[in-house]
This record gives sequence, structure tokens and C-alpha cells, in this order.
Amino acid sequence: MLGQIIEQTRERVPLIHNLTSYVVANDCANITLACGASPIMAEELTEVEEIVSAAAALVMNTGILTEVRLTAMLAAGKRANYLERPVILDPVGAGVSRFRTYAVLSLIKDIRVQVIRGNNSEIRKLHEIYSQNKGEAAVESPSIGKGVDASELDIIREEELDKHIRTAKELAGYTGAIVVITGAIDIITDGTRVRLIHNGVAMLRQVTGSGCMLSSVIGAYCGANPRACLDACTAAAGAIGLCGEYAYEKIQRRQEGSASLRCYLIDGMSQLSGKELQRGIRLEER
Amino acid sequence: MLGQIIEQTRERVPLIHNLTSYVVANDCANITLACGASPIMAEELTEVEEIVSAAAALVMNTGILTEVRLTAMLAAGKRANYLERPVILDPVGAGVSRFRTYAVLSLIKDIRVQVIRGNNSEIRKLHEIYSQNKGEAAVESPSIGKGVDASELDIIREEELDKHIRTAKELAGYTGAIVVITGAIDIITDGTRVRLIHNGVAMLRQVTGSGCMLSSVIGAYCGANPRACLDACTAAAGAIGLCGEYAYEKIQRRQEGSASLRCYLIDGMSQLSGKELQRGIRLEER
Amino acid sequence: MLGQIIEQTRERVPLIHNLTSYVVANDCANITLACGASPIMAEELTEVEEIVSAAAALVMNTGILTEVRLTAMLAAGKRANYLERPVILDPVGAGVSRFRTYAVLSLIKDIRVQVIRGNNSEIRKLHEIYSQNKGEAAVESPSIGKGVDASELDIIREEELDKHIRTAKELAGYTGAIVVITGAIDIITDGTRVRLIHNGVAMLRQVTGSGCMLSSVIGAYCGANPRACLDACTAAAGAIGLCGEYAYEKIQRRQEGSASLRCYLIDGMSQLSGKELQRGIRLEER
Repeated sequence: MLGQIIEQTRERVPLIHNLTSYVVANDCANITLACGASPIMAEELTEVEEIVSAAAALVMNTGILTEVRLTAMLAAGKRANYLERPVILDPVGAGVSRFRTYAVLSLIKDIRVQVIRGNNSEIRKLHEIYSQNKGEAAVESPSIGKGVDASELDIIREEELDKHIRTAKELAGYTGAIVVITGAIDIITDGTRVRLIHNGVAMLRQVTGSGCMLSSVIGAYCGANPRACLDACTAAAGAIGLCGEYAYEKIQRRQEGSASLRCYLIDGMSQLSGKELQRGIRLEER
Repeated sequence: MLGQIIEQTRERVPLIHNLTSYVVANDCANITLACGASPIMAEELTEVEEIVSAAAALVMNTGILTEVRLTAMLAAGKRANYLERPVILDPVGAGVSRFRTYAVLSLIKDIRVQVIRGNNSEIRKLHEIYSQNKGEAAVESPSIGKGVDASELDIIREEELDKHIRTAKELAGYTGAIVVITGAIDIITDGTRVRLIHNGVAMLRQVTGSGCMLSSVIGAYCGANPRACLDACTAAAGAIGLCGEYAYEKIQRRQEGSASLRCYLIDGMSQLSGKELQRGIRLEER
Repeated sequence: MLGQIIEQTRERVPLIHNLTSYVVANDCANITLACGASPIMAEELTEVEEIVSAAAALVMNTGILTEVRLTAMLAAGKRANYLERPVILDPVGAGVSRFRTYAVLSLIKDIRVQVIRGNNSEIRKLHEIYSQNKGEAAVESPSIGKGVDASELDIIREEELDKHIRTAKELAGYTGAIVVITGAIDIITDGTRVRLIHNGVAMLRQVTGSGCMLSSVIGAYCGANPRACLDACTAAAGAIGLCGEYAYEKIQRRQEGSASLRCYLIDGMSQLSGKELQRGIRLEER
């Protein structure tokens, strides 16, 4: 029952270590609180291992990555692995620069990542590199994508869904991680089971970090439900989609714009019950 | 008259140097503006002494602390001491890692801090270290707390109020600072006088940085009223509490959530007059 | 036609590289999305040249500047020059410290900047240094300004408008950049043509980063209209002013404060059409 994922999170109030970019750090902290968990941010190498030891899960986001933060991520991730805490990777910008792509591949190689959550450009880029190297990570001058936000071309549509599902399943196979691709339809797979979420609104793309917020929610849900990470990812994608719809309906009625959408998205997450998720999620299993 | 603290701030528009974490920097800048002061953020070692020299007060917040930012804090703090400007310390994460605890103790040791504002976990941790060392700061592998947000167990309630007041008074004695503990009841003490604020709503804990914002408001009020820091702290805690109540009443009426609460909290601060504070504050002196 | 600047931006969705401070990064990203462009943030030296190569324009903001970020700006700016992409400079804090002033002058000296957008204090400080050195940049212990937000004294008013126009024109002459001074009346000049914008509300000064957001909008509009940068600056200043008026009217009606103003400012930008700008802008050419 996906509703229980949410209720469990509110009950257990897991501490979630977010190692993320400053563009979205405030939103990620607020949505972590909104879904019932407790965020902690720390990036000084001296303390990250100690911090992650107290946390139930680790979320790593490569937005505005620096060499220094990458080093902290590697240390925190290894420690999380040792303690068997779920690690969630948001590969922001994979494909936009050699450094970013290299960093993401290093993280996947050196750390056992439970969940990779990205947009279609990022996931396709990672898939491309792994397939060209027979399932091995290797960095060769990656082609430059459009940016960190999914471009119009990258939105997953019904007609090419099968292709994207295959991509996600293969990347899950290569990496051993659950792969979550967000778009008009969200794809969640552990390489075997495939779940599609048909919730959400296109306008969420006008809110910076809406994908990063989803990654933080996945971290919160996985932290509280470590033995049910596939369900946690499904519940998180459904919850963000549903809250997005709720927020969109509200701004339409009030004639407001993208900043209000962001505000109501987080509002919705702070109000969402397990029952409402159960009732509102449009989940398809393949 | 506490109302005058607010009016004086709006009239003098003090420049306040905030050395804070990127999770809350935007909110801290906005609430500083909302209460009538002018924020300036700077953390490059080369310039912090010059910046603080132009400022009326310095707010140091140890959220997402790095070694580099700690060094800047020490330099800025010493300069503020030399110029006799109030220094406010928000010991975010004291107790969550050795580095964070060590950093907070170093700041208190090397800088004359006028105000320490923390949640109950942080203040208790500092108090514990000072008491175990006969009033001296010393760092020994501190036990790990729950995170940077006050946990349910840490909320100050009526029944254990006396114990927490004693803790606050003793820490004020050890450090020479005014100590402010925020919780369901806020405690403010200079070691002799004790003031309790009964304003505020529990849901403020769902807004990241609501405590950090209070520290910035304390900085603004102390900057404009440097000879009345105890009153400034009292007014600031009352103002945040009152604006929290106002915001909570509004989201209840409009059926909104935690992001709207944050928005209306800052809104309220931008609208609050001295008279309204005077009328709404529930202050108890002990 | 200024309206076309907006429509063109929504149609072309230019990628804009923002190298900015963490206080305003989230707001700058969101307003960039709101005006139809796609933001990318990157500051690691290893990747900035690659990132800016994929971008249509570069926005550099010296808020909370560090030596490290300054180095990244110099690298990104030179690359943008080589590729003939517009570079927008927001000289936050010019005049508040020797480091900040030095950094801004270095950027103008080493990079061909298309637009400088600042408040009156910042622009006057830059102008003063250039005039004292016969049009050459040189750094000598600059006097300390009031802070990073325009002080009451710095607001441009009708009676001293001519003086400020002269300042802007001369700085444009010294630097070769379009100069934009924002205040009660905005001044935009390329050294020859002068445009004044009479839109906007005073309360925008209570929103941190409202000037920084304007600089990001200028970046978006210049990125989509690189051959019409003067029009792009004019449209951007008009758009922010108009959305500020719209937001102010809304908070008055709803009895809200400065945080709601910020929210509706971005909302307005996400809703603004070219036609509405055309109809609402109060533009004066001199």
C-alpha cells in the first residue's frame, strides 16, 4: 500500500542528509519537512561521514557541483554504503559538461546507489555511455545537452514510451539502481518491474528544482521505508505529481503564476495524507 | 517599551552583516528587510572585516558550516568586538558533529558574543560541555543529536520549564552572552533576568530556518538598539511568535500549508508595528 | 517593438548561464524560467567555459563574491566574449569593500561587458573611479557605501535626474557597456540614446535580489535578442516594473506583505505577454 509509505514517514521522522546545490537547498529542506522527515545539510569533508551516520538516507544532487563538494559526496556515500543507508543520486547536468558527466559516473562507480532520479536527457546520456562501453562507465567528451531542465524534446510522451522504458530498464541493469525518469509520464523501474505514473502538470517545469525536490522526497520516503525503495519512489513520484495538479488547479482559479505554483506544491506536500495519495495516484504497472 | 525596539529599527535602518548558510540566506535577507534593516552578506576573508566595520551588528549562523566560512566568522567576529558591535551566534548543529560543536565552541571562546540563540538540543549540548569542564569550553566527542531542527523531545513544555531556565541561566553565566532558547515557550535570559514568551505555533517547525530567521531579526533589533539587547531579543522572539500566529491563522482559513506559512511569516514581519507587538506579545518575567 | 523581445524569448527558450550569489540564485533561476528562458548555474572552474559555450548569454553577479567565484567569472566571461555572447554584469557591492570594488573593475577591464546593471550607489562609485582616473579603472581605497541595497538617499528622483543621466552616459562611454541604473526612475543608456522607465513601486526594495532578478531577466532577453540589447534592457526594466506594480496592487488588495510581493513579482513575469508590456510600459526617450 503506497499510502503507508507516507504515513510511515510522518511517524518515523527520519533524518535525511541532503548534499545538494544552493539553488535548490531551501526548497529541498522545506519539502523534506513537508513530507514529514527532518533535513540536515552538511558538506564539509570533516563532518559528512559523522552526519550521514546519524541519517536514515543520503540524497546527492550534482547541481552547481564543485570538486570540493564531489569529494564530500564520495566520502558521505561510502559511509552510507557501509551503514546500509539508501543513497539517492540526482545527476543534475549529466551531459552538460565533461566535469558533470565524469562526476556522476564516478559517484555511480564508487558508491552503491539505490536510486537514480533524473530527467530524460540526463538518463539517456548515462545510458548512452554505459551501452557504448558494454555496461562499463567511461568518460569520453560527452555531447552537450540543452541544460539542466528537461527540454521540450526530452519530455516523455506516449508514442515513444517503450523506448524510454527500455532505456530505464537497461540503466537499472547496468548500475543496480532503481531508475526514475520524470516527464509527462514518470517511469520507475528496478530493471524488472516497471511502474508508470500519469500524474503531474507540464507547468512544473517552470519551477526550478521541482525534480530536485522529488529526489529529496524519494530520500525521505526511502529513509523511512528502506526495505521498500521501489514503493517509496512510486509514492514520491505520485505525491509530487498529485500536489502539482492540486497547485495548478489553485493557480488557475486564482489567476496566479509560477511562483505561486511552487508555493502550493510544497503546501500540498505538507497536507497530503496516505489516503489521498492512494485515491489520486494514476499508477500503471507493466 | 518593546514596541520602540521595532520602531527604532525601522527608523535607523541598520546595516546587518549576516554570515550564514545558503539554505536560509535568502529568507534571512528577506526577513531582515521586512523588519526594517538592511542585510549584507559577505564571506570572503579578504573583505569580511571591512564589511562588518560598516555594519551595526553581525549575525553568525553555523548551518552547513565549512572550515573556510569558520575562518571568516572568526575574523569578522573579532573585528565586530573591536568596534563594539553586537555579535549574534546561531549555533546550528552544535552536537550533530564534532566539527560543528568544535566550531561553535571556538566562536564563543575567541569572540565576545552578545547573544546565543538556539533550539533546546543545541543549548543543552553547549551547557553540558561547559558544565563538565567547570565552565570552560572543551571538545570531546559529543553525542549526536537528532538533527538541526528541534525534535519533539526537545520542545520546551511547561512541566520541565524550570530545568531549561536553569540551563539557560547557567550558559549565560559561563559565556557572558544573553541566551535565547526557542520552543513552545521561548526563554530569554542574561543570567539574571528571565523572560518567557508564550507566542508562536508548533507548525513553524515545518518551515526550515524559522529559528535562523529569528536570529537575523535579533541581529537587526540589536543593531538598531545596541544598548538594549535583552529587550531586542525579547521583542524579536515576540515578533516572530506573533507573526507565526498570524500566518497560521491565515493558512487555516485559506486551507494552505507550510510554504504559505513561511510566506505569511515574512509578510507579517514587514507589516508589524510596535503597537501591535505591544498588544500581542505574551510576556512573562521571572 | 519591445513586446517582441518578450515573445522572442518565449519562443527561443535561450539557455542562460548565471554565475551568481547563493542569496538570490533560486529567485534568479525562477525568474529566468518565468520569462521563458532556461537557467543553468555552474561555478566550478573546470566546467564554466564548457557551460557558457552552450549558453546564449552570461549573467555575472558579484553578491557574496569569493576569490574562487571571481576566477570562474573571468574564465567564463572571456569565453563568452570569444563566442560573442552577451555578458551582463551586476556589480553587487561595488563600493562596499576594496575586494568587491576591485573585483568589479577587474571584470570590466578583462571582459567586454554588454550591460552593467546596478543601483545608484554602485554605478556612482564606478563612475567616480573611472572619472578620477581619466576613464581608466584603478582601485584606491573606495569609500564605504551603505550596503548592497539602494539606500533612501540613492533613489533617483525627478529633481536630480539630469545628473544621474550624465553619470550613466559617461560610464557607458568609459566602459563601452549599456548602463542600467534602477531606482524610482530607471535609466538605460548606451552612451548616446537615453531611455527612462517610469514603472515600478518603492516596496520592491523590501525584496532581496529584486535588482539581481532584473539582471537575470536582462540576460534572458539579451540571450534571445543579441542584436537588440538596448531594447532588451528596456523591455526587462519595463517588465520588472510592471510586474512590481501588478504585485503591489495585489498585496494591497489582499493585505499581504513583502514575501507575497516577491511571489507575485515572479508570478507576473510568468504571465506577462508582449502586448501587456507594450500597453503598460511608461517609457520616455531623451
